[in-house]
Amino acid sequence: MNVPLEDHRAPDFPEFTRPLLADLKKIFRTESGRVFVFPGSGTGGWEAAISNTLCAGDKVLTASFGQFSSLWVDMCRAFNLDVVNCDVTWGHGVPLDEYQAILEKDTSHAVKAVLVCHNETATGVTSDVAGVRRILNDLGHPALLFVDGVSSVGSIDFRMDEWGVDVAVSGSQKGFMMPTGLSIVGVSLKALKACESATLPSSYFNFHEMMKMNEQGYFPYTPAATLLRALRASIDMLMDEGLPNVFARHHRLANGVRAAVDAWGLRNCAAGPQWHSDTVTAILVPDGFNANDVIQAAYHNYGVSLGGGLGKVAGKVFRIGHLGWLNETMVLQALGGVEMAMIDAGIEFQAGAGVGAAVQHYTKSRQPLTLAAE
Amino acid sequence: MNVPLEDHRAPDFPEFTRPLLADLKKIFRTESGRVFVFPGSGTGGWEAAISNTLCAGDKVLTASFGQFSSLWVDMCRAFNLDVVNCDVTWGHGVPLDEYQAILEKDTSHAVKAVLVCHNETATGVTSDVAGVRRILNDLGHPALLFVDGVSSVGSIDFRMDEWGVDVAVSGSQKGFMMPTGLSIVGVSLKALKACESATLPSSYFNFHEMMKMNEQGYFPYTPAATLLRALRASIDMLMDEGLPNVFARHHRLANGVRAAVDAWGLRNCAAGPQWHSDTVTAILVPDGFNANDVIQAAYHNYGVSLGGGLGKVAGKVFRIGHLGWLNETMVLQALGGVEMAMIDAGIEFQAGAGVGAAVQHYTKSRQPLTLAAE
Amino acid sequence: MNVPLEDHRAPDFPEFTRPLLADLKKIFRTESGRVFVFPGSGTGGWEAAISNTLCAGDKVLTASFGQFSSLWVDMCRAFNLDVVNCDVTWGHGVPLDEYQAILEKDTSHAVKAVLVCHNETATGVTSDVAGVRRILNDLGHPALLFVDGVSSVGSIDFRMDEWGVDVAVSGSQKGFMMPTGLSIVGVSLKALKACESATLPSSYFNFHEMMKMNEQGYFPYTPAATLLRALRASIDMLMDEGLPNVFARHHRLANGVRAAVDAWGLRNCAAGPQWHSDTVTAILVPDGFNANDVIQAAYHNYGVSLGGGLGKVAGKVFRIGHLGWLNETMVLQALGGVEMAMIDAGIEFQAGAGVGAAVQHYTKSRQPLTLAAE
Amino acid sequence: MNVPLEDHRAPDFPEFTRPLLADLKKIFRTESGRVFVFPGSGTGGWEAAISNTLCAGDKVLTASFGQFSSLWVDMCRAFNLDVVNCDVTWGHGVPLDEYQAILEKDTSHAVKAVLVCHNETATGVTSDVAGVRRILNDLGHPALLFVDGVSSVGSIDFRMDEWGVDVAVSGSQKGFMMPTGLSIVGVSLKALKACESATLPSSYFNFHEMMKMNEQGYFPYTPAATLLRALRASIDMLMDEGLPNVFARHHRLANGVRAAVDAWGLRNCAAGPQWHSDTVTAILVPDGFNANDVIQAAYHNYGVSLGGGLGKVAGKVFRIGHLGWLNETMVLQALGGVEMAMIDAGIEFQAGAGVGAAVQHYTKSRQPLTLAAE
Repeated sequence: MNVPLEDHRAPDFPEFTRPLLADLKKIFRTESGRVFVFPGSGTGGWEAAISNTLCAGDKVLTASFGQFSSLWVDMCRAFNLDVVNCDVTWGHGVPLDEYQAILEKDTSHAVKAVLVCHNETATGVTSDVAGVRRILNDLGHPALLFVDGVSSVGSIDFRMDEWGVDVAVSGSQKGFMMPTGLSIVGVSLKALKACESATLPSSYFNFHEMMKMNEQGYFPYTPAATLLRALRASIDMLMDEGLPNVFARHHRLANGVRAAVDAWGLRNCAAGPQWHSDTVTAILVPDGFNANDVIQAAYHNYGVSLGGGLGKVAGKVFRIGHLGWLNETMVLQALGGVEMAMIDAGIEFQAGAGVGAAVQHYTKSRQPLTLAAE
Repeated sequence: MNVPLEDHRAPDFPEFTRPLLADLKKIFRTESGRVFVFPGSGTGGWEAAISNTLCAGDKVLTASFGQFSSLWVDMCRAFNLDVVNCDVTWGHGVPLDEYQAILEKDTSHAVKAVLVCHNETATGVTSDVAGVRRILNDLGHPALLFVDGVSSVGSIDFRMDEWGVDVAVSGSQKGFMMPTGLSIVGVSLKALKACESATLPSSYFNFHEMMKMNEQGYFPYTPAATLLRALRASIDMLMDEGLPNVFARHHRLANGVRAAVDAWGLRNCAAGPQWHSDTVTAILVPDGFNANDVIQAAYHNYGVSLGGGLGKVAGKVFRIGHLGWLNETMVLQALGGVEMAMIDAGIEFQAGAGVGAAVQHYTKSRQPLTLAAE
Repeated sequence: MNVPLEDHRAPDFPEFTRPLLADLKKIFRTESGRVFVFPGSGTGGWEAAISNTLCAGDKVLTASFGQFSSLWVDMCRAFNLDVVNCDVTWGHGVPLDEYQAILEKDTSHAVKAVLVCHNETATGVTSDVAGVRRILNDLGHPALLFVDGVSSVGSIDFRMDEWGVDVAVSGSQKGFMMPTGLSIVGVSLKALKACESATLPSSYFNFHEMMKMNEQGYFPYTPAATLLRALRASIDMLMDEGLPNVFARHHRLANGVRAAVDAWGLRNCAAGPQWHSDTVTAILVPDGFNANDVIQAAYHNYGVSLGGGLGKVAGKVFRIGHLGWLNETMVLQALGGVEMAMIDAGIEFQAGAGVGAAVQHYTKSRQPLTLAAE
Repeated sequence: MNVPLEDHRAPDFPEFTRPLLADLKKIFRTESGRVFVFPGSGTGGWEAAISNTLCAGDKVLTASFGQFSSLWVDMCRAFNLDVVNCDVTWGHGVPLDEYQAILEKDTSHAVKAVLVCHNETATGVTSDVAGVRRILNDLGHPALLFVDGVSSVGSIDFRMDEWGVDVAVSGSQKGFMMPTGLSIVGVSLKALKACESATLPSSYFNFHEMMKMNEQGYFPYTPAATLLRALRASIDMLMDEGLPNVFARHHRLANGVRAAVDAWGLRNCAAGPQWHSDTVTAILVPDGFNANDVIQAAYHNYGVSLGGGLGKVAGKVFRIGHLGWLNETMVLQALGGVEMAMIDAGIEFQAGAGVGAAVQHYTKSRQPLTLAAE
């Protein structure tokens, strides 16, 4: 720090960046693809997917079933894509049947890309990416598969190569347990190939410029070096714990939250177990109550930040995030805060019931310590 | 940091130390006394009290009713003092009756100092310092009053001048919410006067050397400057919240813990409400159980550090600390951890009952936000 | 951190963002314009300027005289703009005469934007933004004025309103003394108006989406909250010192560097005093030497990161950055490192001459401490 | 931090403390002795040496030749020891001849301990500890050998076993590159044995209490856990670099400082090369000048903290510390600051001469990178 010049052009910077990018591929579970890191956010990754591979007027198949899936659809329209959107009841995920029907009819392969929001944060819904890939494969449909993995990569099972994901978008602030500030984007060889025919302008988030410099261990413009160092530490934590252990931990912690929801007599916004997200739970308040009252009480009375209902579920749900560097007592702390806030908001339930249900789940499901690395 | 020389001799260092020491007096609630800060721990403060003011062979009146009160008595013996000790059942505090009886008989004023452990951490017992002062005053007894306030100053009501405390010992790691590393010692004019006739050797913890240099804004030897800066921040936090608010917050949080203990069907080690500590609760496990099983389960299974039973209560109690920078949900987190650990240790109770009782207490006792400063 | 949910949607987040954005306007010296903050880098700000306000095929007037000015020109071409570029000898700045000549002939006002790189880091050259504005005004030419102020805003005199800058691009990692990670973009009312007719796709860096949410104190997508908090601290530092004092400090420190260059018998890459940058100095090595040898020696032998020669000046110059939180001894440290590295690289000069010249400059030019705030 | 209870009694705390204490023995170069760590400062270590091993009235042989050596002598008197002190001209070190003469005459072995300040910070003088050991051995004198190694251990060659040091006192804030806050004390078996007959009261700094608990991996009272963690990092740094490399680095850096002093035409307070300290240099200002003017100018004009003249050399010397985590450019920064301050104080010399001399020394003496570990 004493001599504050640009050191991202230092002779030994590649010794840092090359293993970092190689290890990111392990987190995304891709061998043939690349992972790029841009200063930006997950939203920037959405833009990268579109602007690098498509042309204005290209047809894309999308589904909106929550705030984040819908915003990506909006972005497609802003880029003048021809959007075929499935409007899905919030609480459900990507509609495999509708996707199947639309793609079946698309014998001319006009659909150039299919979009999936893997984990919709607004409703706590996880979609079936592998199922979408199966449909594409069964039909021999060549469309690119774009996946928003912002709140899934590094937290729940994600398999870029096995699922044939062409652009996988993530960010630093969820599974990587870091501050916001990085767009992390996995790109398949097929997507890199698609860049050649794309005509949308792409500069800041351009894959080929990034790839060219990455190959030498550098970046085409000033990288967010401090965040890259944090990313190194984050990847090390994930790999030390082992991805299967990370996923199992999230699943077990999420089951405790769901047990609490049941014990409170409330309903999960996710409409069925197949949609349950292991990283965030959106909870419906009873009729006649406003979820914002719970959120305000939690924040102002107890210093707890609950997620608010976004878009269509505003006022109907509050959300508990449960991902990243998290253990049982941290979940209990959040559940305890929710209990106090619900009492302040006038919702009736037996105090301690939710925490107690989670306590029981955690003690029953406790495993001998596993020390496996990936 | 670039030029790493001693800066505790910098020309403007007094501008930092003078208000720091002045504000410490407000925390100790003394106007006429001094507060000194040594690199050390609370144990060093015990030694400072003894070595500065007494002579080998001096008679002191003490009470042992827990690990920490007993260790101070041991130290008195190591300094060859003539110790008159009241051996009190653990769970009780300073025995006012016994103290009264002994001091009444001491018409020659052979007792030079009376020791009180204000808040015995091992048993979660708070003693009545004002009561001891009343006895001394009623008898016109000139003995010095030494108080161990390591886990009380800055957390529960402590009044050095009003209670006539001559040496008040504290440390950085409890009410000051800092790492261990500072002995913080309040000294009355009467105690400073007593230094003149003291013959025990005193150098490192010497009050007069410290006072002489403090008056110029410096220290007689290298101070722990980083900890002093942290102490500045700590004092600011206490004064911003306002000491009465700090004490009220600790009392309310502690009541939640006690409600949980009741709901679990367990007993507090403190033998009656008059002894209840607002900064730590020692909880007796049922007969036939080993408290260490709870502690081991909490630590190894859930990453929660409970205090162990020390000395006579080893295996019988585990302790929950609840002081410093703490709010409701942090207490609930600890209680949730205790519930899981008790289940693992085989103790029967209704899961969630303790957390639920605390949740109820906190929601019922919630005040409109107070913004008062001291 | 205990309950790690999105808090950038917290009820009181606007209390943080509104004064932050208001104070940024003071740093950019604009009252009528807006300042937007995106997760990204300065390069993202370049893209924001183009994509928000222009249409494919629009004519823009540019000048390339260094690596960074040239890269922005490349980006204009990537967006299919019709670029009229002045190819200037590196070491000079924006060619006012050529700009004047071209704009004079453009009576149809085909030129939609004029680009200026205020401070070209590759050559250590500062250009005359006010001069460009004068030309536009004298001709009554309505083109937008875009300025790359990445290494000038907050370090050297920059006046958005007075100079009629329509889009001013900056980043977090230079004058704001922060890690890379934020695009900070000043936008005039005229530029906001131009957005309406722009047809280039713009989503991530969209001004109007940002403005709409900023007005409510929020962001259209997850902001880089930790960097925003650092930005708050950075702005406070700049305002505490006072911008005129900040600029004067940079000027004085830069004069010391230039005195050292003279004393070494070397030449500044900037071709004349009017081009001298107060934030970075590029130094030409004598004929027959390779600047990379100096850079490698500095890095590997002494841990000093010098800037390398980029593009046309690769191997010919090394660069010393001198901006941000910097004082005299930090400059001397860098100059000392350069002296050692030059000796290792075989360049002849009197050891200590450069540092001595700077020492003399700093002692002669020392002012009584100024305490003025802006 | 979520559950802020005492974790220095955690079941796995010994896994941290045992290797820490074992590695400290490597730094002190002792196999048979112990190293103890107290919350405190180096001054506390002096007290530990005295109070653990001696009786009131014991004869000790000391030498005062600077502020710190003199203060230790004062402490001996405060403990009512019978002090035989050699008053040495400041700038010289321990007088081997005088020590030899006194010990020779002491055929009754009345002298119980011999004190040596290894590295006198006030004058920048290193004494010959091995020489004192030789005298004791040659005479077969059984006195304990106490060494103040506060500013030598971990920075310059120190060999506890080989030199037969019985109590070696150090602190955290010098060679260990940490904040002040720890007394680190090496104790030989002979010194531990001497504790048995010692009658001075010893409690806080008691060796046997500490040893008893350390053997189980714990401490007799609350340790400064955060500082212990920093100490772990510090030891790792020293061992990674390798002690011989650390010493060589300090020697080479110090030679650069001494070259600068010569080039300025000034004199080193250390009266001859055999006394030159590799961790601090005290520089005599010319007659007619006040060293405090240099110190004030450095501090107020350039933010550089120089050490002031202490005791007999007040006003005559200023000091440059050069130990710890330090490289060439950091020394050059300090030397540049000194040059500016000397000019402001009116001292005449050629600006840049000192820095230039150091630059020449560092470039000439540069070694190929050594990667050896100890």
